Amino acid sequence: MQAVVFTDYKTFPSLQEVDKPSPGPGEVLLKVAGAGACHSDVSIYSHFEEGQPGAQKPGFVLGHETSGWVEAVGDGVSGFEVGDAYLVYGPIGCGHCAACSRGQDTYCENVASTPYMGIGLGRDGGMAEYVSVPARNLVPLGDSDAVTAAPLADAALTPYHAVKLALPNLAGGGRYALVVGLGGLGQIAVQILTAITGATVIATDMKPEAMEKAAAAGAITVPGGPDQAARIREITGGKGVDAAFDFVGVTPTIELARSVMAQGSRLTVVGIAGGTAEWSFFTTPYESVITNTYWGTIEELHEVVALYRDGKIAPEVERFALADALDAYTKMEAGELTARAVVVPHGA
Amino acid sequence: MQAVVFTDYKTFPSLQEVDKPSPGPGEVLLKVAGAGACHSDVSIYSHFEEGQPGAQKPGFVLGHETSGWVEAVGDGVSGFEVGDAYLVYGPIGCGHCAACSRGQDTYCENVASTPYMGIGLGRDGGMAEYVSVPARNLVPLGDSDAVTAAPLADAALTPYHAVKLALPNLAGGGRYALVVGLGGLGQIAVQILTAITGATVIATDMKPEAMEKAAAAGAITVPGGPDQAARIREITGGKGVDAAFDFVGVTPTIELARSVMAQGSRLTVVGIAGGTAEWSFFTTPYESVITNTYWGTIEELHEVVALYRDGKIAPEVERFALADALDAYTKMEAGELTARAVVVPHGA
Amino acid sequence: MQAVVFTDYKTFPSLQEVDKPSPGPGEVLLKVAGAGACHSDVSIYSHFEEGQPGAQKPGFVLGHETSGWVEAVGDGVSGFEVGDAYLVYGPIGCGHCAACSRGQDTYCENVASTPYMGIGLGRDGGMAEYVSVPARNLVPLGDSDAVTAAPLADAALTPYHAVKLALPNLAGGGRYALVVGLGGLGQIAVQILTAITGATVIATDMKPEAMEKAAAAGAITVPGGPDQAARIREITGGKGVDAAFDFVGVTPTIELARSVMAQGSRLTVVGIAGGTAEWSFFTTPYESVITNTYWGTIEELHEVVALYRDGKIAPEVERFALADALDAYTKMEAGELTARAVVVPHGA
Amino acid sequence: MQAVVFTDYKTFPSLQEVDKPSPGPGEVLLKVAGAGACHSDVSIYSHFEEGQPGAQKPGFVLGHETSGWVEAVGDGVSGFEVGDAYLVYGPIGCGHCAACSRGQDTYCENVASTPYMGIGLGRDGGMAEYVSVPARNLVPLGDSDAVTAAPLADAALTPYHAVKLALPNLAGGGRYALVVGLGGLGQIAVQILTAITGATVIATDMKPEAMEKAAAAGAITVPGGPDQAARIREITGGKGVDAAFDFVGVTPTIELARSVMAQGSRLTVVGIAGGTAEWSFFTTPYESVITNTYWGTIEELHEVVALYRDGKIAPEVERFALADALDAYTKMEAGELTARAVVVPHGA
Repeated sequence: MQAVVFTDYKTFPSLQEVDKPSPGPGEVLLKVAGAGACHSDVSIYSHFEEGQPGAQKPGFVLGHETSGWVEAVGDGVSGFEVGDAYLVYGPIGCGHCAACSRGQDTYCENVASTPYMGIGLGRDGGMAEYVSVPARNLVPLGDSDAVTAAPLADAALTPYHAVKLALPNLAGGGRYALVVGLGGLGQIAVQILTAITGATVIATDMKPEAMEKAAAAGAITVPGGPDQAARIREITGGKGVDAAFDFVGVTPTIELARSVMAQGSRLTVVGIAGGTAEWSFFTTPYESVITNTYWGTIEELHEVVALYRDGKIAPEVERFALADALDAYTKMEAGELTARAVVVPHGA
Repeated sequence: MQAVVFTDYKTFPSLQEVDKPSPGPGEVLLKVAGAGACHSDVSIYSHFEEGQPGAQKPGFVLGHETSGWVEAVGDGVSGFEVGDAYLVYGPIGCGHCAACSRGQDTYCENVASTPYMGIGLGRDGGMAEYVSVPARNLVPLGDSDAVTAAPLADAALTPYHAVKLALPNLAGGGRYALVVGLGGLGQIAVQILTAITGATVIATDMKPEAMEKAAAAGAITVPGGPDQAARIREITGGKGVDAAFDFVGVTPTIELARSVMAQGSRLTVVGIAGGTAEWSFFTTPYESVITNTYWGTIEELHEVVALYRDGKIAPEVERFALADALDAYTKMEAGELTARAVVVPHGA
Repeated sequence: MQAVVFTDYKTFPSLQEVDKPSPGPGEVLLKVAGAGACHSDVSIYSHFEEGQPGAQKPGFVLGHETSGWVEAVGDGVSGFEVGDAYLVYGPIGCGHCAACSRGQDTYCENVASTPYMGIGLGRDGGMAEYVSVPARNLVPLGDSDAVTAAPLADAALTPYHAVKLALPNLAGGGRYALVVGLGGLGQIAVQILTAITGATVIATDMKPEAMEKAAAAGAITVPGGPDQAARIREITGGKGVDAAFDFVGVTPTIELARSVMAQGSRLTVVGIAGGTAEWSFFTTPYESVITNTYWGTIEELHEVVALYRDGKIAPEVERFALADALDAYTKMEAGELTARAVVVPHGA
Repeated sequence: MQAVVFTDYKTFPSLQEVDKPSPGPGEVLLKVAGAGACHSDVSIYSHFEEGQPGAQKPGFVLGHETSGWVEAVGDGVSGFEVGDAYLVYGPIGCGHCAACSRGQDTYCENVASTPYMGIGLGRDGGMAEYVSVPARNLVPLGDSDAVTAAPLADAALTPYHAVKLALPNLAGGGRYALVVGLGGLGQIAVQILTAITGATVIATDMKPEAMEKAAAAGAITVPGGPDQAARIREITGGKGVDAAFDFVGVTPTIELARSVMAQGSRLTVVGIAGGTAEWSFFTTPYESVITNTYWGTIEELHEVVALYRDGKIAPEVERFALADALDAYTKMEAGELTARAVVVPHGA
C-alpha cells in the first residue's frame, strides 16, 4: 500500500509502497478515512537529530491525527464491527503505570524506556491506506463525518484538555476567557469555550481573516496594537480574564496574556515557541497561575467526539488525496493552508 | 407610602399606608423598581400558623424579590451613588456565623435565634414604594432593566445555585441535563443550563406552551406519557442524564427523574411538594446522588446578574402597578399568570 | 498446580490440580504471594444461579485479591523484572470504552458483552500457585510485605474509593467522618480516614473488640443503644457528620447514618445488605446526598499501595496454606475469622 | 487605656494612653486576651512612606492578630455573651462587593476606596486593653486558651489558606508536600499539612533548631547544601513534590522549589521577599503551576480554630505584658525571638 514515510532526520518524507499491516493481539486494523498533517510532523522530519529529546527514530509512517473504518481485528479483541468509524488516540505509553492506567499516555511514567511515543510518532501512523492500532486507542464516531473528524485527535484534544483544566476558573456567570492565536487549535478553542462554558470569549490574532472566523464562532475579537491589553481589560469590566490560552507561546504573547489576568485566574501556554516570562510575587494577581499543557486523555477524546457528533465543534479541513499528501506538507511549511490538511487515502 | 402588608396568619394581605423607612446604620434605602410575587408569599399568609417551622410573625411588608434605585444611605455606608440600580439578596442570618460569613445566610447556624429570615420574610420587603436593606445584600445592576431584574433574586438564584452545585456533573462534552417542571424557575433553569454548560438540555412539563418556551430557549422537550422515561433515556444514547432538576417535587416527578439518571449523576429536588422516593443500593446507578437545595449565596447573585446583564438569561415578567399588587397575588393563586408578576411602584 | 476452583453454582469450591497458566500477549505470569478470601466469593459459589445478574459462569479459579512475584511475561510486555512483587487490580472490562480507558473497569460500558468480570471473577484468579494477568492490572509493591498486601486489592480499594469521592466533604478543619460497621473494610476505612484527612473519625459496631481496634487506629467509638445517634451528634458539636460510610447497609444502619448527617454531607452505603431509606425533601439536611459505590480504579490502587508502603494503612490478615484454603472459606462462612484470610501458596 | 500606637511613618511605635473604645453599631467590644506582633507591623512603621501601595495612614493602634473576651456589644448585635472568648479576623473591606460577601475581605474589589485595610491596619487594632471590631469578624474560641490563639489570625490563617487551595494536589495516597522556611508560619504549615492531608511533609530551613521542631511535628527535614534538591526528589521516589510552600520568597528558595516540583503540582510563594523566577514552557513540569497567596477568609479562620480546639495545631508563643510590648517589637526586629510574640494586656 502507499504511505507517507519519515525516512531520515532532516529529510522531507517520501510517498512509498509499504506492506499493508496486520493487526497484532489487542489491535484493530483500520482502513484510513482521514489523516491530519500537523506542524509537529515537520519538527520530526526537519528539526530533530538523533538522540535529541523529542526525536523519533526514522523509518515509520507519519500521521498522528487519524480516523478510519474497522477492517479487521486482532486476537483478543471483541466489540467491533467491520466498517464502523473510529477516531484514533495517538499517544502510547508503557501501558502499566498510573498515568497510562487513567488513559493519559502523554504523561507515561516510563516514557524513557518506551520504544515510541505513539501512532505516527515512532510507530506507523495514519498517512497510509491502512493502519493498525490498539483497540484501547479507538473512539467511536458513529455516523458522523469520519474524514473531517481526523484533526480532532490533536487539534481539538489539545485545546479541549487545556480548557477542561480551566473549567473551575470559568464556572458560572461573569467569566471571561482569552484565546491568543487563532490558527487551527485556537479556532477550535473558541468553539469549545463557546460550547461548554458561559464565559465571554475574547480572541486575538494578527490575521483579520482568522479574527473573522473567531467572531463568527461567538468570540469578541480584539486586534493587536498599543491598546490591545487595555481593550481586553475593558471588556472584562476591569477585572481581567479568568482563563487565557496562548496558542503562540512567544514572549510577547505570554506577556500580553499576563497583563490581563484576573485574580485567581489560569494562564495556559499551549504553543511551544519557547517564550519566557519573569514571575514575581508582586506582578502576579493573587492566586493566578501560569502553566503549560500537553495533548489530552482517551476519555477526553470521547468527550471531544461527543461535541463533534452534536455539531458543537467543527474543524475546518482541506482534503488531499494520498497521492498529494506531500503537497500538504509543502503547503503547510509555506504557510499556504487556511485550514487543517487532511489526507484522504480512499477518496472523499 | 403604600405597601402590601402581611397582617395576620391565614389572611390575604392588605394594601396599606405605612411609614417610609429610614436607612439604619449599614443600610441603604432603595426606591423600589420591581418586587416579584412568589408562591412562598402565599404560604406565608395562607398556610402557616404561629409557631410552625417556616412561619413568619405577621406585621411586615411582603416582597423578597426586590430591585431598586439608591435613595439614601445609612451611617457607615459608602460606595453608593443615589439613583444607581441594585438587586436585593433576600436572606438575612445572624451575620457572624461561618455560613453568613460566606454570604450564605440561607444556612445561618443561628437561624433558631434570628428575629426574621430575610427581607420580606419577617422584615419589611419590597412590595412598597421604598425599602431599607443592608448594604451587604445589594448587587449592582448597572444600566440593565431594573424592573425585569427583580425575580432574579429568587426565581433565578434558586435554580442557579442548584445548577452550580451540579457543574462538575455537567463539565465537558457528552453531558445531559434534565429539567422537570417548566414554571418560572424551570424556564430560567433551562436558560442557565444552556448559557453556562455544554450539556444537551432535556425539558418536560404538562403544559405544551411551557414546553414551547423551553424549546425556544434551546431545550429538547419530551411530553408526558408512558414512553416519557424511555424517550429521555434514548436522547442520552441510553446512558441517562448527568444532572436532573425537579422543580415540581411530587413523588411521580422524583420517580421519573430517578428512572433516567446516569452513573455518577446528581438529582436535585427543588420543588417542595413533599414527594418521596425509596432509596436502595440496588436501584441507584453507581455513585449517583439525590439531594435537595435552598436558594443561594450573595456571590452567586452577583453571577446571576452578570448573566442577566450579558443577555444570557431573561426572566419573563408581567408588570402590575402597586395599586394592583393584590391582583397579582389573586391571579397567582388562581393560576392565571403566564409569567412572573412584578409589582412596579413607580411606574414602568 | 493446585488451585481453588469454583466448579458449579451452589457448590462449595474444590482444591484441584489444574494446568499452570502461560502468560498471553500483554500478560504477566505471577507466582502468587497471597490471595485474599472475600465474602463475595461465597456469593459466587453459594447464592447465584445461572443467568442471575452478578452470576459468574463456573469453571474458574477463585481469588480476586491477589499479590505475587513476576515469573514470566507474555508477548509485547516490557518493564517487568522477574521476582518483583505486584498487587493485582481485579476488574477487567472491555478495555476500549471510556470507563476502561480511565482504569475504572468496574463501570465498563460494555459489561453486558464481556466474557467475565475480572480476575477470580469468571476468569482464573489468585487462589492457586500461579496466575496470569494483564500487565495493565499490576501495581508495584516494592519491598513491602507482598502477602499482607493481598487484601488491599478489594478490602482497601473499596473504602479508599468511597473516601476519595468524599474528600471535598472532609477538606480542612472541623470535619467529622462516621464509619458504621468495623469488619475488614470498615477497619481499613478508619485507617484511611485517619491517614488522609483531618476529620475526627467516629466509629461504631456491635462488637466491642472491633471498636477497640478502631479506637487504637484513632477513632472515637460510640456503642449501639438508644443514645447512639445523640452521642454521635454531640461529638460533632451538634452539626452532624460531614461524611458517613455504612459498611453494613441494612435499613437500621442506613437510618442511623441518615439521622446524624450535616448539611452538605455525603452518606455512602458500601455494604450490599439491601437496606432501604425513604428519601424526602424535608428529612434531608440541605444539599446532603446519599449514594452507593463499587470497588475502585487502577490509579487509586496505586495510591492505596503508596499508603501501605508508607505504613499508613495495614490490613490485618490470617494466613492459610494453599492446602488449607478451603478451611479459610469454611471459617469465613462460620464467622470464625477475626481478620482477612489470606491464602499463601508458597509459604510465608 | 494603654495602647501601642503607630504615630508616624518611619517611626518606632509608642506606648500611649488612649481612650477606651465604644462598640459602634454592628460591633463588639473585646477585652484583649492576646495580640500577636507580626513582621508586617514593622513594614508599617519602618518601611512605608505616605502614598506608597500598602502604606497605612498613621494614628492607630497596631495589632492584627487579636483575641479577646466580649465586654459589650453595639446596636443591632445579638448572640454574644459577655466573657466569651473570640478570635478576630483582621481584614475589613468595603463590605458589599462579591469578595467581601464571601468573607474574603483581603480581595475586596473596592480596596482603592476603603478607609483602612483592617483591624490594626489603618484602624485601631489589638495592641491595647480593649478593641472594638465588627461582629462578623469574630470566631468563637470556646474554652480553648485565648492567649495562645491570637497568632492563629494571621500566622495560621495565611498558611491554612495556601494549603487549602493545594488540597486537590495533595488528595490521597503517595503525595508529597514541601515547606521552605520554618519560621512561625512555616512551622504551623507543617502542623496543618500533617493534620489535614496524608502527604509526606518535607521541610527545610537554614536553622537546625527550626528543623528539629518541624521534625517533631512530623516532617522529614532536609538541610541546605548542594544535594538539597536531589535529596528532596529522592524522598519522593523521583517524581517530585505535589505542593510546595515557600515562606521565604527569595530567588534561591523559589528556584529550589521549582527544581523539585512534580507534574501537575502547585508551588505557592507565601513570603514577600520579592524573589523572581524565569518561567518557560520547557522548564515547567506539565501542568504544574506557580502562584502567590494572601491571608485567608473568615470561614477558613473558623476551620483554623477548629483545628486549634482539637489540639491539631498549636502556635508557639512568647508572652509579653502590655508594658513590655515595645520590647517585643525590638526583639523581633533584632531576630531575638524564637516564637511568636504575644502581648497580654490583662496578664496571663
